[in-house]
Amino acid sequence: MDHPAGAITKEDLGLVLTSAPFAAIYNFEVASCGEGECSIRVPFQAALERPGGIVSGAVFMAAADVAMWLAIKTRLGLEDGSVTAEMKTNFLAGAKHESFTCTARILKCGRRLVYGVAECLNEDGKLLTHHTLTYIRHDK
Amino acid sequence: MDHPAGAITKEDLGLVLTSAPFAAIYNFEVASCGEGECSIRVPFQAALERPGGIVSGAVFMAAADVAMWLAIKTRLGLEDGSVTAEMKTNFLAGAKHESFTCTARILKCGRRLVYGVAECLNEDGKLLTHHTLTYIRHDK
Amino acid sequence: MDHPAGAITKEDLGLVLTSAPFAAIYNFEVASCGEGECSIRVPFQAALERPGGIVSGAVFMAAADVAMWLAIKTRLGLEDGSVTAEMKTNFLAGAKHESFTCTARILKCGRRLVYGVAECLNEDGKLLTHHTLTYIRHDK
Amino acid sequence: MDHPAGAITKEDLGLVLTSAPFAAIYNFEVASCGEGECSIRVPFQAALERPGGIVSGAVFMAAADVAMWLAIKTRLGLEDGSVTAEMKTNFLAGAKHESFTCTARILKCGRRLVYGVAECLNEDGKLLTHHTLTYIRHDK
Repeated sequence: MDHPAGAITKEDLGLVLTSAPFAAIYNFEVASCGEGECSIRVPFQAALERPGGIVSGAVFMAAADVAMWLAIKTRLGLEDGSVTAEMKTNFLAGAKHESFTCTARILKCGRRLVYGVAECLNEDGKLLTHHTLTYIRHDK
Repeated sequence: MDHPAGAITKEDLGLVLTSAPFAAIYNFEVASCGEGECSIRVPFQAALERPGGIVSGAVFMAAADVAMWLAIKTRLGLEDGSVTAEMKTNFLAGAKHESFTCTARILKCGRRLVYGVAECLNEDGKLLTHHTLTYIRHDK
Repeated sequence: MDHPAGAITKEDLGLVLTSAPFAAIYNFEVASCGEGECSIRVPFQAALERPGGIVSGAVFMAAADVAMWLAIKTRLGLEDGSVTAEMKTNFLAGAKHESFTCTARILKCGRRLVYGVAECLNEDGKLLTHHTLTYIRHDK
Repeated sequence: MDHPAGAITKEDLGLVLTSAPFAAIYNFEVASCGEGECSIRVPFQAALERPGGIVSGAVFMAAADVAMWLAIKTRLGLEDGSVTAEMKTNFLAGAKHESFTCTARILKCGRRLVYGVAECLNEDGKLLTHHTLTYIRHDK
């Protein structure tokens, strides 16, 4: 059964994040959430740079995947077991020594697949990356 | 100018990897390389798990991106400045407490864009993920 | 040089459409355009059905590609020679014996690549397909 | 239940093609098939050109979608009701006044999703486009 809208808080999603070992690497923080949406903040870390001092593409992809994972929980509940089936990323501008925010939004929550988009913006509102993601719902 | 085929060794690519701070997180090792191809080994690490004990999707995406980055250097030289324009990942099977190998291969090395595929296989040869990637060559 | 905003009309884009032989198959009509945006109308045609009476996926992909091609002309001029480098489509709901509208919008108009999204909606506003597209600008 | 391997012939798939109204536009012909694979031939048609005399991208996408649809039938039977969930296309080289062949191959036939790749080659064996596709199996 779907979770009642509005029942999931930023604090709930923050707890989910702490249960994922890999998320600790990135220091993700839940910035905000709403029905079918979630934004996370990704602080700058020198350890996540590529040569040339720009943030590694893997950080944006990890952020988009996590933001969508949490966005889905706002719709299907904290225990939802959906997993990523596919995702695509377009890298539009580099981030140099800067934090960014990644916002994911569900466009279609189907009976079997959930589809949405995510985007990463720097603090000036510049679009850094754009992502599309499909999650497959847990089979009952 | 393109680098002469065969001039780039596994050891050369290993040195490139050590120059990338973010690659240290994943403990990637260059397993083999050839003209337009590179395989990297990704050892299992509990720190990179998602809840449920499966390897986080971000690890596969990071591996594919790095394997292609190195594959391109076998064609365009160690100093080549191409960056990822877009990549897509399909997650086909989960990896549970296991290492895997990611192999990238160039399909088209154009004057402005380089396109290729990457795949991650576990030690039994099972296909875990499949990726397509476009790099954009450095503008002269 | 970029075309001055607002100088390109719906009628201009309609003439571009008539110059493309393949577009005649689909009976595309330009519905509206704006700076970096274009909507086309795709009338229902029995000849474009798949078995089961639903509109073939190829029609949505053709529509998205054409809508983006015209959206780019609103920014770079009617003579612009950009071509599609890659596109991805997610099919979210089927269309049965119905017309639809496809709207494309540029998210980043770079010096070498142009990236944007397109979506097809039926007459009730239901999202049928979602697309992302990269065009590569003509090399001067 | 899966169809016994080898039971599906090129002629069977040719009949499936004639049942799809939209396929008639393209004059697709089944060239060969095997377990989890299908190749179709796409003859050149002036009606499918874009301005500049090159084959419209929509033709390659339609071909890839159809070739995978038939490849799936070699595994799941002629009556299989799987539909495209998503597909991505990279356009690698243009085709000018020439026919081409599109070959699709299943990489993973899962219980709910089927994933594969397709590629279009011209008569000289040049890679024109590369595609990845996910089909969703009919829900029982």
